[in-house]
Amino acid sequence: MNGAESLLSTLIASGIKVCFANPGTSEMHFVAALDKMSGMRAVLCLFEGVVTGAADGYGRMAEKPACTLLHLGPGLANGLANLHNARRAATPIVNIVGDHATYHARYDAPLASDVAGFARPVSGWIQSSPSALTVAADAARAVQAAMEPPGQIATLILPADTAWSEADHPAPALPRPQLGAADAEAVNQAASALQTTKRSAILIRGSALKEAGLKAAGRISAATGVRIFCDTLAPRIQRGAGRVVADRIPYLAEDIVEFLQEVEQLILVGAKPPVTFFAYPGKPSWPTPEGCRIMVLSHAHEDGTAALDALADALNAPPAPANVAVLTTPDLPKSGKLDARAAVQVIARYLPEDAILADEALTSGIPYFKCTATCAPHDYLNVAGGAIGAMLPVGIGAAVACPERKVVCLEGDGSAMYTLQALWTQAREQLDVTTVIYANRSYAILNIELARLGVEDPGLKAQSLFDLHDPTLDWVKLAEGMGVEAARAETTERFVDLFASAMKTRGPRLIEAVI
Amino acid sequence: MNGAESLLSTLIASGIKVCFANPGTSEMHFVAALDKMSGMRAVLCLFEGVVTGAADGYGRMAEKPACTLLHLGPGLANGLANLHNARRAATPIVNIVGDHATYHARYDAPLASDVAGFARPVSGWIQSSPSALTVAADAARAVQAAMEPPGQIATLILPADTAWSEADHPAPALPRPQLGAADAEAVNQAASALQTTKRSAILIRGSALKEAGLKAAGRISAATGVRIFCDTLAPRIQRGAGRVVADRIPYLAEDIVEFLQEVEQLILVGAKPPVTFFAYPGKPSWPTPEGCRIMVLSHAHEDGTAALDALADALNAPPAPANVAVLTTPDLPKSGKLDARAAVQVIARYLPEDAILADEALTSGIPYFKCTATCAPHDYLNVAGGAIGAMLPVGIGAAVACPERKVVCLEGDGSAMYTLQALWTQAREQLDVTTVIYANRSYAILNIELARLGVEDPGLKAQSLFDLHDPTLDWVKLAEGMGVEAARAETTERFVDLFASAMKTRGPRLIEAVI
Repeated sequence: MNGAESLLSTLIASGIKVCFANPGTSEMHFVAALDKMSGMRAVLCLFEGVVTGAADGYGRMAEKPACTLLHLGPGLANGLANLHNARRAATPIVNIVGDHATYHARYDAPLASDVAGFARPVSGWIQSSPSALTVAADAARAVQAAMEPPGQIATLILPADTAWSEADHPAPALPRPQLGAADAEAVNQAASALQTTKRSAILIRGSALKEAGLKAAGRISAATGVRIFCDTLAPRIQRGAGRVVADRIPYLAEDIVEFLQEVEQLILVGAKPPVTFFAYPGKPSWPTPEGCRIMVLSHAHEDGTAALDALADALNAPPAPANVAVLTTPDLPKSGKLDARAAVQVIARYLPEDAILADEALTSGIPYFKCTATCAPHDYLNVAGGAIGAMLPVGIGAAVACPERKVVCLEGDGSAMYTLQALWTQAREQLDVTTVIYANRSYAILNIELARLGVEDPGLKAQSLFDLHDPTLDWVKLAEGMGVEAARAETTERFVDLFASAMKTRGPRLIEAVI
Repeated sequence: MNGAESLLSTLIASGIKVCFANPGTSEMHFVAALDKMSGMRAVLCLFEGVVTGAADGYGRMAEKPACTLLHLGPGLANGLANLHNARRAATPIVNIVGDHATYHARYDAPLASDVAGFARPVSGWIQSSPSALTVAADAARAVQAAMEPPGQIATLILPADTAWSEADHPAPALPRPQLGAADAEAVNQAASALQTTKRSAILIRGSALKEAGLKAAGRISAATGVRIFCDTLAPRIQRGAGRVVADRIPYLAEDIVEFLQEVEQLILVGAKPPVTFFAYPGKPSWPTPEGCRIMVLSHAHEDGTAALDALADALNAPPAPANVAVLTTPDLPKSGKLDARAAVQVIARYLPEDAILADEALTSGIPYFKCTATCAPHDYLNVAGGAIGAMLPVGIGAAVACPERKVVCLEGDGSAMYTLQALWTQAREQLDVTTVIYANRSYAILNIELARLGVEDPGLKAQSLFDLHDPTLDWVKLAEGMGVEAARAETTERFVDLFASAMKTRGPRLIEAVI
């Protein structure tokens, strides 16, 4: 058994079932090991940003890590932006990054680089295996490290000779770390605070945004009238009919200030106090009102759902939660020229139960978030770290983690271009993903931001930097070029036809929604 | 004048004329400044790997930096792989990376990250401007740092408030650093070594691989019989008819050993001793024969051309160089099914004088390198750091630097997928670039590498990770989807038609060469 084989069997024994891969020469023995043993699905992606984004989507939905297989420093580097998103989402991921043989490092060959240096800004745990004999133990520890609550990125660097040299045995799985218990005193303090101050809100992030945590929050709301908030870029929310609604903090600084202005008391569950996404001249970075009391019910590494349950019980909250969404089938929008609002209405109407909605629509999505609050129950995924190019890959990972569920990716055309290679993997794996490209043919959000930063009347040169016309991207050709069936909708009627049909059929589809 | 305006005028005053850009909110004031002043061409790229690769191509051809405009840590991260290549090519580049406002940093907003940490593995110089008042001086220093011989990457991090706050004046340009003079004693030692040992070779890298340096080397060869070598991945070589031929060190370890086996004395001009690209079990990383004497005529930061001239004079070399390539028009290959060799023959036949050949064909290119040694004189660019996805962007930069010259990009299909967004910028800027995609529909080099690493008979799972069929990439649709005229050639005749016609017409074209 060589090091690569000991690595692979250890990963499998530790519960890793999927490897998103873009291998090179230094990873050949790992690739060869994949042939020799079963239990690891290998999914080829044609760019590493797709690899890491897919691992993010998988980890968010499976609640355990996938591994990546990346080729040396540049391969890791190509995956860093989506690892940034995964770090912000607290997604467990195990990166396997091949490196030059230990004895080759000193020759500074062309592909040599500071692999650990590339990994550091995104990784919670980094190890470079010094020998084939340690690879198995290192791998077991990497999986454990990735699961350290609330979840983090563990990067295992594998010099080529530690892969091909003779190893010992696979290592047994290490215990899976568990979420810590929230402090009982924090529960008591929150209970008494909610009983004495009326204008309160609970801000939730992490696994407590799943159905059970939201239900507990809804019970607390029923008892106290507390409002329930989630972050602008919450990584995953269980939403839709039958579920307690969390109001999302807005994106723009001035809207956050208005949203929070009446809040006298903010109770954090796995969340940090709200901050604005960017700074703007003369606008606050810290939008919480002066004098607002901020309390922590549970930290991100603690069990927020249990803490909310304990708080509900401490308040003798009724069993039935408040703020439960009631299924509402939106009317079909007026016929004629498609726009972003109409598209979301159609999506809300036809989204099947238990779908996964991966949303990177930005200007075409943020204003219409409420439209999907009362549609069929679904998981909602967002660009947790704000690095665009996330959701096409995240959709791959979600579809691999949940093969029975329909995945719908909502993408701005500008964002989608960062990782469009994801479409090929959708086609190869025949993933059940419907991608909607909102083709506004611009970096629309930047036109808004330019004005907000006080730049009036941008000239032609500035405008051209946000403009994706000239030439117009043809998403139907781009998708077909990678083997994904695609069509274009310029009217509401056509979008209804295409989207409704995609929801009834399995397999990858792309709809270019010209808005 | 705000900080962004002081930055931009300083860059222009320091000789920077082109900005390859993918801006975001934190870069808005720089974008606004572009409108207010003339002298900086802004080229939008739809992915940061294209931005940095284009800056690499520009710097190699213009021999001065372009600047990039990148959005925070993730924007820089997306550009790192091609910055790795640029670092290995010693290309001067000034990165302008926007960051959160200085006072916003402590809030750890979603897009916050360790920008300097991302920059460190690829940058020779890093500075984060602490105030709008220092931005201009920092920018002048960044340009100077980038020009530090032989050229390096200077990364200037620009917090948003240093861009929008009031600044003083632009800063004057700082002196351009010059190549150092090679040591006179090194010249004497090399001269006497060449007079006493016959089996010698000169290994050249850097600017001495342009016509003048090669001519001096050819004179030395005429006087002494010394062989002239260049690195496998030399960043830029002036080749073709009328120029002295440098024999390229092969790619594979065993081939390098054979290539070097008779060399008793190796004289380095801006190069390091050869090492193998990867380590392989039981094969040497250091292919220079035992006992071979290694001498340094000039280091990379010194003037290799002047050193070669001095050496030629010290040897009383004749004025006419040896090893001059004589123009040879290859016969047209046999008709029928196209293959990589036939394609290169066609390219060599029709390549116009003074073209720029950006080569990332790998398995379809490395074996046929000699075919272009005797065609029309041209500049040859290569993937200096081995990180694939380089040449489509490098071609953009070369075309912007040299608008009167035809650029021909030779791309493997696997490599091209990493940065295919480059095609859109080709179309928008109407760059005179012809891209040939060698569609072998596989990571062909990995099949070779797997066998070389001792893995025989790879199974289906391993094979599938190198196989780009299922689905087949349709490069005609991909190119047309980004506005580039494209066609497919499956036969030699068709390739002749398409390539010859592309050489006669200006503007972007793509030819999918199915091999």
